[in-house]
Amino acid sequence: MKTNALSKMGQRTTEPPISWLMHAALSRPKLISLAAGFTDNASLPVAGARTALNQVFRSPKTGQPALQYGITAGNPALRKLTAAHLQKLDFQAVVSSSHSSLSLVLELKSRTSLRADASARQARTKDEDEKIYSPERLLITSGSQQLLYMTTEALCNEGDIVLVEDPTYFVFLGILQSRGLRARSVRLERDGLDLAHLERVLQSLRRNGELRRVKLFYLVSYFQNPTGVTTSFQKKCGLLKLLKKFERAAGHPIYLLEDAAYRGLRFAGNDVPSALAVPGAAERVIYAGTFSKPFATGVRVGYGILPKPLFAAVKHIKGNHDFGTSNLLQYLVARALASGIYGRHVARLQKRYAHKARVMKLAIERHFPPAVEWWEPEGGLYFWARLPRNVSTGLKSKVFSTALKNDVLYVPGEICYADDAARRKPNHEMRISFGNASEAEIREGIARLGKGLRKFLK
Amino acid sequence: MKTNALSKMGQRTTEPPISWLMHAALSRPKLISLAAGFTDNASLPVAGARTALNQVFRSPKTGQPALQYGITAGNPALRKLTAAHLQKLDFQAVVSSSHSSLSLVLELKSRTSLRADASARQARTKDEDEKIYSPERLLITSGSQQLLYMTTEALCNEGDIVLVEDPTYFVFLGILQSRGLRARSVRLERDGLDLAHLERVLQSLRRNGELRRVKLFYLVSYFQNPTGVTTSFQKKCGLLKLLKKFERAAGHPIYLLEDAAYRGLRFAGNDVPSALAVPGAAERVIYAGTFSKPFATGVRVGYGILPKPLFAAVKHIKGNHDFGTSNLLQYLVARALASGIYGRHVARLQKRYAHKARVMKLAIERHFPPAVEWWEPEGGLYFWARLPRNVSTGLKSKVFSTALKNDVLYVPGEICYADDAARRKPNHEMRISFGNASEAEIREGIARLGKGLRKFLK
Repeated sequence: MKTNALSKMGQRTTEPPISWLMHAALSRPKLISLAAGFTDNASLPVAGARTALNQVFRSPKTGQPALQYGITAGNPALRKLTAAHLQKLDFQAVVSSSHSSLSLVLELKSRTSLRADASARQARTKDEDEKIYSPERLLITSGSQQLLYMTTEALCNEGDIVLVEDPTYFVFLGILQSRGLRARSVRLERDGLDLAHLERVLQSLRRNGELRRVKLFYLVSYFQNPTGVTTSFQKKCGLLKLLKKFERAAGHPIYLLEDAAYRGLRFAGNDVPSALAVPGAAERVIYAGTFSKPFATGVRVGYGILPKPLFAAVKHIKGNHDFGTSNLLQYLVARALASGIYGRHVARLQKRYAHKARVMKLAIERHFPPAVEWWEPEGGLYFWARLPRNVSTGLKSKVFSTALKNDVLYVPGEICYADDAARRKPNHEMRISFGNASEAEIREGIARLGKGLRKFLK
Repeated sequence: MKTNALSKMGQRTTEPPISWLMHAALSRPKLISLAAGFTDNASLPVAGARTALNQVFRSPKTGQPALQYGITAGNPALRKLTAAHLQKLDFQAVVSSSHSSLSLVLELKSRTSLRADASARQARTKDEDEKIYSPERLLITSGSQQLLYMTTEALCNEGDIVLVEDPTYFVFLGILQSRGLRARSVRLERDGLDLAHLERVLQSLRRNGELRRVKLFYLVSYFQNPTGVTTSFQKKCGLLKLLKKFERAAGHPIYLLEDAAYRGLRFAGNDVPSALAVPGAAERVIYAGTFSKPFATGVRVGYGILPKPLFAAVKHIKGNHDFGTSNLLQYLVARALASGIYGRHVARLQKRYAHKARVMKLAIERHFPPAVEWWEPEGGLYFWARLPRNVSTGLKSKVFSTALKNDVLYVPGEICYADDAARRKPNHEMRISFGNASEAEIREGIARLGKGLRKFLK
């Protein structure tokens, strides 16, 4: 007799590698962790959250419904605020985007009514816009993580293939592994996906008859975890066009799941419009956003904008998961948004991370050997450092064990890569976070890391 | 080309019947809903929650971690408090249980150290007890609903069979349907399962070679939703013994998933020990509890106690779902438990529901025709009324449409029954809730319902 009765999924779902890193951290009290994706403790909005909650609890009229069940799709007021918030973000991003050519801006203005001159809006384009950023297709979730999970449930059968960036968010890879899904990886460049590589991957899948197993491209579009890369709007347009091109061969729509978890944490440069703003493409885009990272990670409120048939399926699945995210948390976020507490907090946070990123940059310039390549991020929480290909940074590498001996921890690049037979898994990179560590810890941590690296990179 | 790319699960997961009921309610403003499983709005602990949260936010030392990510298994302080709370409940239930024979109490005392005389504890039995009610195998979830979902993920493959009570909690039936699982139903008696019927069901599954597809019995053990039945401790012992007996033929353990969602809402009679207290059986019991119903349904904090191999699998699955329930909610509940706010609230709630149940009972006695049978509940939120078998109460029945015309809503019994080829689905019952309605609404709602029933039951 077997000792347990685990399902295939129960057997497949293993301890995530990040847990191992956390255990390592716990056993070394002097360790500086540049691994965690946590946000800055001191920056958390204790006063703001208290104020917003006391406003909610001021009267039974708002206090009682906050403590009662809501509806599965989420609190209507929060959905409205969130949809308006996102619409405004995309509107401003299109208008202010100095990267976009003027013609692109004009095209967007005329097609989706993302225009500076609101009075000049035409009814039709306004209607389109209202349809895209509609609270009716916005679902509140327990962090955007839950949306990622449920989207794979609604779309993917065991054995299906999900296209991902190479590297990508490792917890998403955990979802794929757990659910028996396969990943195909598409190379990254400084401004996002390598579209030529994507086309070759799609062609090869079509040749092998596997395109029908592809329902989804998963893209971490802002300050990507782990590389910090932001996908340009031009590349989003190109990506959606390519997916569309291969739909006939696939036999069904191929959706873009845009994970915008870090979008609110920009501290340099201009915001980029989301894929929802790509003309004519909104019916193929699932936009996953969150209030956790930019407000408080202990307040797990995320959201998704989904095409209609997906919205219904994911909402019904959420009914089975938990029939709705905590109403109290939703009231808190709605209050923070409506009162301006949220906006002021995000502005403070951006300044704070800008400063911490600069501290890390200066420390890296001072302590890392010149053979280490890295990109300066414009937002998010991470630096991504690339060693020469022959120097391994993995959990079993000398670089990693030396760092641990020197009491500093990073995320080895290898855990951010999918298993993909089409290429050897890179193992010479590291994700270094300035999110949780203090300024002093950042300086000292980078110095310790640099000291170890100099041993292996003469 | 298909118009969408939904997975088998995405296609299977449909609008739950309860949503339809809610829509019906929204379109009739004068409607009295005796359908919703909501708790009483006026009873929600606005002052208590505000006090507890202000305590959490009093200093950055507790305010900051409440707003930060926690660990996937849950906040250690809350897990410890919850485990101790549950251990105390079971201890008191064993000691005070007048239904248990003295020999049973003594057996329990010696085997699991659930004894009144703490000083007489022996080291060994205390160790056993500590192992069963250990925070190490207690997982915090987003309501107990999430635990139900993840347990089926960890144990059941598509096509597997889950044993359930007949009738049972309809949202759980929705999970089974969505995940492609089959249900086999076991009859209920006034004090819980019909064990002789369970044995026949297990024998028939063994004969058909389907026992290997059975991993789980799902039992709503306290004031069952929908019938209000509480399973006696003797029946829990018998149930676990029977499952054990068929394990060899199954080739693996058969677990008992005990859903104790309503346990805190007892207002008459003595508490019954959970299945965890059944001597020698703790390694087969998954106990699902919640703070949502007894404290605030808008605060979605539930928990599970799981056997070790299951604990790890479900925790890893939760890592993929959301990597942990909102820390803020967990701090709120921990504070409410530790400060006594929770205990005082539950005591108030019990009095309130005792009163509302009495109001409903008197109204039913006055207005329902004598041909309607019903049981008086000792807790929970529901009365379960049984009409003669030939009078249908379903969504398409005249009884239902008449009730709706008279502006009163109940949950038709039919939606609480699994599809099970072994019997015809009963369709002559109704779940009537006193949870959300006011006293006046209960009186008026029952009068309206009775008026309709008298038309069909001369």
